[in-house]
Amino acid sequence: MTEWIVGTKLSDVPANVRQEAKRALFNWLGVAIGASYHPSVDIVLALANEVGGNEQASILGRGTKLNTLFAALINGMTSHIFDFDDTHLETVLHPSSPVAPVAFALGEYYNLTGEDVLESFILGVEAECRISQAVYPDHYEAGWHSTSTAGNFGAAIAAAKILGLNTLQLMHAIGIAASQASGLREMFGTMTKPYHPGKAAMNGIMAAMLAKRGLTSSEQGIEAKAGFANVLSTKQDYSLITKELGQRWELLNNSYKPYACGIVAHPTMDGVIRLRNRYAIDPRDVVLIESTVHRLVPVLMGKQNPRTGLESKFSTYHSAAVALIDGKGGEEQFSDERVTASDVVEMRKKVVLTVSSSIEKDDAIVKIHLKGGKVFTEHVQHTVGSKDNPMSDKALTDKFYELTKGILDEVNIRQLVDSMLLLESKRITDIVNLCKKD
Amino acid sequence: MTEWIVGTKLSDVPANVRQEAKRALFNWLGVAIGASYHPSVDIVLALANEVGGNEQASILGRGTKLNTLFAALINGMTSHIFDFDDTHLETVLHPSSPVAPVAFALGEYYNLTGEDVLESFILGVEAECRISQAVYPDHYEAGWHSTSTAGNFGAAIAAAKILGLNTLQLMHAIGIAASQASGLREMFGTMTKPYHPGKAAMNGIMAAMLAKRGLTSSEQGIEAKAGFANVLSTKQDYSLITKELGQRWELLNNSYKPYACGIVAHPTMDGVIRLRNRYAIDPRDVVLIESTVHRLVPVLMGKQNPRTGLESKFSTYHSAAVALIDGKGGEEQFSDERVTASDVVEMRKKVVLTVSSSIEKDDAIVKIHLKGGKVFTEHVQHTVGSKDNPMSDKALTDKFYELTKGILDEVNIRQLVDSMLLLESKRITDIVNLCKKD
Repeated sequence: MTEWIVGTKLSDVPANVRQEAKRALFNWLGVAIGASYHPSVDIVLALANEVGGNEQASILGRGTKLNTLFAALINGMTSHIFDFDDTHLETVLHPSSPVAPVAFALGEYYNLTGEDVLESFILGVEAECRISQAVYPDHYEAGWHSTSTAGNFGAAIAAAKILGLNTLQLMHAIGIAASQASGLREMFGTMTKPYHPGKAAMNGIMAAMLAKRGLTSSEQGIEAKAGFANVLSTKQDYSLITKELGQRWELLNNSYKPYACGIVAHPTMDGVIRLRNRYAIDPRDVVLIESTVHRLVPVLMGKQNPRTGLESKFSTYHSAAVALIDGKGGEEQFSDERVTASDVVEMRKKVVLTVSSSIEKDDAIVKIHLKGGKVFTEHVQHTVGSKDNPMSDKALTDKFYELTKGILDEVNIRQLVDSMLLLESKRITDIVNLCKKD
Repeated sequence: MTEWIVGTKLSDVPANVRQEAKRALFNWLGVAIGASYHPSVDIVLALANEVGGNEQASILGRGTKLNTLFAALINGMTSHIFDFDDTHLETVLHPSSPVAPVAFALGEYYNLTGEDVLESFILGVEAECRISQAVYPDHYEAGWHSTSTAGNFGAAIAAAKILGLNTLQLMHAIGIAASQASGLREMFGTMTKPYHPGKAAMNGIMAAMLAKRGLTSSEQGIEAKAGFANVLSTKQDYSLITKELGQRWELLNNSYKPYACGIVAHPTMDGVIRLRNRYAIDPRDVVLIESTVHRLVPVLMGKQNPRTGLESKFSTYHSAAVALIDGKGGEEQFSDERVTASDVVEMRKKVVLTVSSSIEKDDAIVKIHLKGGKVFTEHVQHTVGSKDNPMSDKALTDKFYELTKGILDEVNIRQLVDSMLLLESKRITDIVNLCKKD
C-alpha cells in the first residue's frame, strides 16, 4: 500500500471520488466550525496557550492561530463534538475527523492549494478505512474507537502526502502511527471521545514530521506479529487493505448525517418526521411512538433518560421525541435545554423500541398512535444519509448554514459555500480566512 | 487508588522508599544526560523547534529549553535510548523513563523543590507498576510495551500530583491516560522504542493539565468493560492495584542495570567478567564461552550477528564478547564501532547459549574454555543489579560519571552527584542548571 500512496496523485483519482471528497470536506468544515466555541475547546486552547507555539494554522470558526499540532488537535475535536460528522458505515468509522484537520492545518501552514489538500485527504481516508476494514468487527467490538485508532494512520498518511515522504519514510510514519494508536469506547459520552480524533490528528502530524526527519520505526507496523493488527484485533484480513487499490474507493461508501446524534437512530427519526409532516400531527395527540429497529439500536442508542445534551445523542427515545415535536434533529435538538424541556421529557416516555432481525441498520418501521386510536405507519428503507439515499448537495448546504450561522457572518458563510465547491482552485489560506468572524 | 494518590504526601512515604526513589532518579538522570546528543534527539528537537513553544523546561544534558510537553518527550526518550534505565523486573517495566521526565519538567517549570518532585515521582511509579502487575504477563506477551502503556498512567499521575488534581479530576486524567495508552513491542530495535516513554510522558502532562481544566472522561478508565485492562489484556487482577496501598511499595522492587543492554544478558556478563578478572584471561586464549541461561535469554537477547550498536543491545553473544574483551558493558561497548571491530566479531562467534529450566532470570552458569583445554566455571546467582544483589551507591555513582563525563564538565558532575543525594532540600532548577555544559 505504501508505494501506491506515495505514487498516487490527485489526477489519478476518479472524478466521482474527488467530488465525494469535496462533499466530505464541506460537511466536515461546517461541523468543525459549528462546535468551535464548545467548552471543551476552551479547555484545550488554554493548554495550547500555556505551552505556547508558533502561529501556523487556525482554529476553524474562531480564527485563533496555533501551531499545526494544536490546530489539528482542536479542529479534530470540533469535528466530532456534535457527533455530526461523516460515517464509513461498514466499520462505524468517522473518516474525516482525524484526517481533514491534518490536511487543512498543513495546507494552511505551507500555503497550499485545495488540490494538495484534496489529494492528502483522499489518500488518508482511503488508508484508514481499509485498515479499519482489515480488523473490523473484532477490533471495534473489543472496545477500540476505530476513528481514533485507524484515524492515527489516516492522519499520518495525510501528513505524509503533504510533506512528500518517500516509501521508506512512509513505512516509518505508519510504524510510529501504529505505536500511537489508542482510544477506548469507554470514553463515549465524555469529552474524551472527541479528543480521540483530535489526538489522532496531532499524532499523525508528529509521526510524519519525525519519519521525514529520520526517526526509524518498524517497516511492518500493521502486519507484524507484535504490530497493530495482531495486537489490537483478533481478525486480520490484509487483502482488504491491499486489494483493488485505485479501483475500489471507500470514500464512495462515506455518508453524512442529517441529524446530530448516533446514526442508528436516524431511520426512526426519518419515519417520525415523514409521518409528522404528512399528517400534520399535533404532539399533544400522540400516545405512543413505536419503532421496529436493528438490534444495534438499543445497544448504541438505548439511553432512556438522558440528563445532558451529550447523553441525548445516545438516546433513540430522545431523538424520536424531538423529531416529532421539532420536526428536525439539528444540534439544538440535542442541547441541555431541550433534554430537560417538559414536552420532550413527556414525549420520550411514549417511545417504544422493538428489535427485529429483519430490519437493516438503515431501516425502521415507525408507527405513531394518536388519541382516539388512529395509527400511522411508515417503513423507512435507507435512511437519509445512507449510501443508498445520500444527502443531496442542497441538504448538505442547508446543514452547513444551520451549523455555522451562529458563528460566522452570513457573507462569509455564502463565500465559504462557493469556495468549497471550487476547492481545487483555491488556496487553503483563503478558505481558512473566511472561517472566523470578521 | 485515586483517593490514596490524592491524599498521600511525601511524609507518608517510608524512608527506605524515599531513598530508593532518589537512587532511581539518580540513575535516571545519568542515563538521560548520557543520551542527550543521540541523533534521534536532534530529530525530535527539530520538530519541537518547528512548531515552537514557550521555554519552560530543559533538555537534560543540553540545557536547551522547550515547553514542558516537548521537554518531557525528549527527556523520556533519552531515558530509554541506551536501554540502560531501571527495571521493575517482575513486569519488565522501566518505571522511571515515562515518569521522571514529567516530574522534572513540571518541577522546573513551577520552580518546585526536590520534595515535590520526589512525591510526584514515587506515586507515579507506584501506580504504573501496580497497573502493570494487574495485566502482566498477558498484556506484555500480547505485544504491548508496558513502559509505554502503563507509563501513560504513571506520567499522568505524576503530573496530577504536581498540579494538585482532586479525586474526580484524577479519575478523568486516568481516563484520558487510558485512551492514550499505546506502544507496540514491534518497534523494539528502532528509534520508536525510546520514543514510547517520551510520548507517554508528554501524554501524561496533557492528560493531567486537561483534566484539571475540566476535560471529562470515564471514571472507570482502567476497569470498565471497554476500559484499559479489558481491552488491552486478557488478564485483569485489580487487587494488585488496590491491595496494601501504603504498605507494599513497588519502588523497592526496582533494579538498575550495570550494563547498557537487555537485562537478561547480565548474569552471563557478570560471570564472564568475574572469570576474566579472577584468572586474568587473555582474550586470544579463549576458544569457547558457554552460558547456561533462562529460556527468555535467546527470545529477548538472541541476535547472533548484530550490525549496529542498537542491535547489539539485543545480543547476548555480543554482550558476552565485549564483557570478555573490555571487562565492562557501558554504552561504548554497544557502539557501532565496537559492533564491527574484528576482535569482537571473532569473539561473538565463540559464544554458545544453552537454555535450562533450572536457571532463573537473574542466574547463569558461565564456562570459559581456553586453548589447551583449561575450563573456568562461574555460577552467577542474582546478577548485579537484581533485587537480591542491588547495585551499590558507589556503583551507581560510577555509572553516573561514566555516562555524563563526555557531556558535562567534571565540576558539574561532582555537584550533581552531591545534589541528587540531597534532592529533598534542592530546587529542581538548581539541579537542572547543572545538567548542561557551562
